[in-house]
Amino acid sequence: MPVIRVAIAGFGGVGRATANLLLARRNRYRHVYGAEIRLVAVCGSRSGLADANGLEPDRLDAPEPGLSGPDFIEASGADILIEAGPSDFRTGGPGLAYIRSALSAGRDAIVISKGALVHSGPDLRALARSSGAMLKLSGATAAALPTIDLIEHSLKGCEVLEIEGILNATTNYLLDAMMNEGLGFDEALGRAQAGGFAEADPRNDTEGWDTASKLILIANFGLDEGLTMDDLAVEGIQSITEQHVAAWRSQRLVPKLVGSLVRSDGATRATVGVRTYPPSDPLAHVSGKDKAIRITTDAMGETVAIGSGTEPLATAAAALKDLEHILTARAARAIAGSGGDA
Amino acid sequence: MPVIRVAIAGFGGVGRATANLLLARRNRYRHVYGAEIRLVAVCGSRSGLADANGLEPDRLDAPEPGLSGPDFIEASGADILIEAGPSDFRTGGPGLAYIRSALSAGRDAIVISKGALVHSGPDLRALARSSGAMLKLSGATAAALPTIDLIEHSLKGCEVLEIEGILNATTNYLLDAMMNEGLGFDEALGRAQAGGFAEADPRNDTEGWDTASKLILIANFGLDEGLTMDDLAVEGIQSITEQHVAAWRSQRLVPKLVGSLVRSDGATRATVGVRTYPPSDPLAHVSGKDKAIRITTDAMGETVAIGSGTEPLATAAAALKDLEHILTARAARAIAGSGGDA
Repeated sequence: MPVIRVAIAGFGGVGRATANLLLARRNRYRHVYGAEIRLVAVCGSRSGLADANGLEPDRLDAPEPGLSGPDFIEASGADILIEAGPSDFRTGGPGLAYIRSALSAGRDAIVISKGALVHSGPDLRALARSSGAMLKLSGATAAALPTIDLIEHSLKGCEVLEIEGILNATTNYLLDAMMNEGLGFDEALGRAQAGGFAEADPRNDTEGWDTASKLILIANFGLDEGLTMDDLAVEGIQSITEQHVAAWRSQRLVPKLVGSLVRSDGATRATVGVRTYPPSDPLAHVSGKDKAIRITTDAMGETVAIGSGTEPLATAAAALKDLEHILTARAARAIAGSGGDA
Repeated sequence: MPVIRVAIAGFGGVGRATANLLLARRNRYRHVYGAEIRLVAVCGSRSGLADANGLEPDRLDAPEPGLSGPDFIEASGADILIEAGPSDFRTGGPGLAYIRSALSAGRDAIVISKGALVHSGPDLRALARSSGAMLKLSGATAAALPTIDLIEHSLKGCEVLEIEGILNATTNYLLDAMMNEGLGFDEALGRAQAGGFAEADPRNDTEGWDTASKLILIANFGLDEGLTMDDLAVEGIQSITEQHVAAWRSQRLVPKLVGSLVRSDGATRATVGVRTYPPSDPLAHVSGKDKAIRITTDAMGETVAIGSGTEPLATAAAALKDLEHILTARAARAIAGSGGDA
């Protein structure tokens, strides 16, 4: 049975959940793909573990200091990299070096953190194309919510005219608190931070950058656009006032922070800002940790998807969906490669 | 450029819309798949057209009597059959012979009408497997709404625990009229029939058989189940009374006819009947022609999809999505086949 070696760079909650789910599904991989999947390396920013014979779950609690970095991952002999490190769209974050290293060597990369993809998406895509490696990012766009999947698979053949996405949980939480409990923005934020629903520095979420990052990934990888952050008009929810809230309440409208993209006459316009929905719109009921996307196409009209998986498991499952798509493609390649022997 | 020949059996509104969309997308197929797609035959129950050089849109208005039947389609030299005839799950309908004929000869089949698939799904699947033909059915399960797509692609790797689907437009219309306009079932039905929203014999819709048919297809082709109509407990909306409606209204619940499937402890339980949803549930807002499915999996939680395309275009687009998946698979096969020459 062929062995396929996987390494995970970035070993916080999501990386760890991905490792556990990967190991728990090894029988499935044997059965469905006829392949033995081995986790040969994991690492965080300062420590890691590697074993060419495969790491078992019980060893993952004791990473060894100093085992980290792209060279460490390369030395593990991994065929596929899963990148799950901290995300920074302004620098690309630590993931960028790992992803570059993997793709340059022709190794497939499954990317969970958005930073590197927003920062250097077109470069990484070009690198993957030139080396023949696959680059997948289901976990980066909105965890378990299918986004690029829908465009590439379920709506295949249709022209995408418009996309609107509710892609950020923190702003869902804050807007709900402001609308339903009469809290002001600062008060809602304080409560969210106390409850662990918002970061200490919440601006990436509240000012719309997280939503913008996800929208850029959907556009660039799902629609072959070449957007950068500079192309987007981004507004957050930080300047919403009591007056806004009162007006929306009186009109029975529900506000959401929405990333939207409209294509017409060959041009693409992408924005992030608050939109309001009447209660009859399914998007009005997307709250808390749920995320949603509405895609309008020429031939299939509107398609809405709403996802509500539990983190970090849902994101891990999204990354491992990518793994199965890679395994499927590798199986097709293997058939192609064996054609000469037939 | 390789030529791929398509035939369409069943040439009512959906068959015709599929032909038009197929012909309108020929440039796309050349560009994306490097293939020339030719529509070499179309037929209804009594008349048809065939041309090995390909039919153009202007000829489709004048079918010739007597050109019909599986032998006519086989003689056209089609590589791929699109079946869009009338649906009858009790007999398999006229589509069954066309699909059997195509799959037996190793030709791929894209099926839009449900009848044959509900009647002989496992047989047809086995036939396809033994001949190496592909059998696709996106247009049959709920038009543009992604159902099997979601299970096979977007939720890949996850275990499906539960499915609930709002899959029938006629019952959406009737329940809306009963809830919002105070009409009784018979009164609502009369109005729906007058407006063209219900058939003269509406029982296939109102008694739940259409929903049950779609649920069986999703289960058998998406989850590899082997359900027949006898395995389902099917209740429709025909016995809903004013008392039911009054109770739901007072509780602010919204009724929908739902096909549901629950898998636990190795057993699958499938039912069709009315379920009620609170207004906070996105499914409460699926009405009119919209359709929806909620799929619960072990690792991704709940995923909801809502589709609202315009017929017959949306169903045509669903069938041609299947065509593109077949073209992709054929391209992979061609690479495999050419491996020997490399």
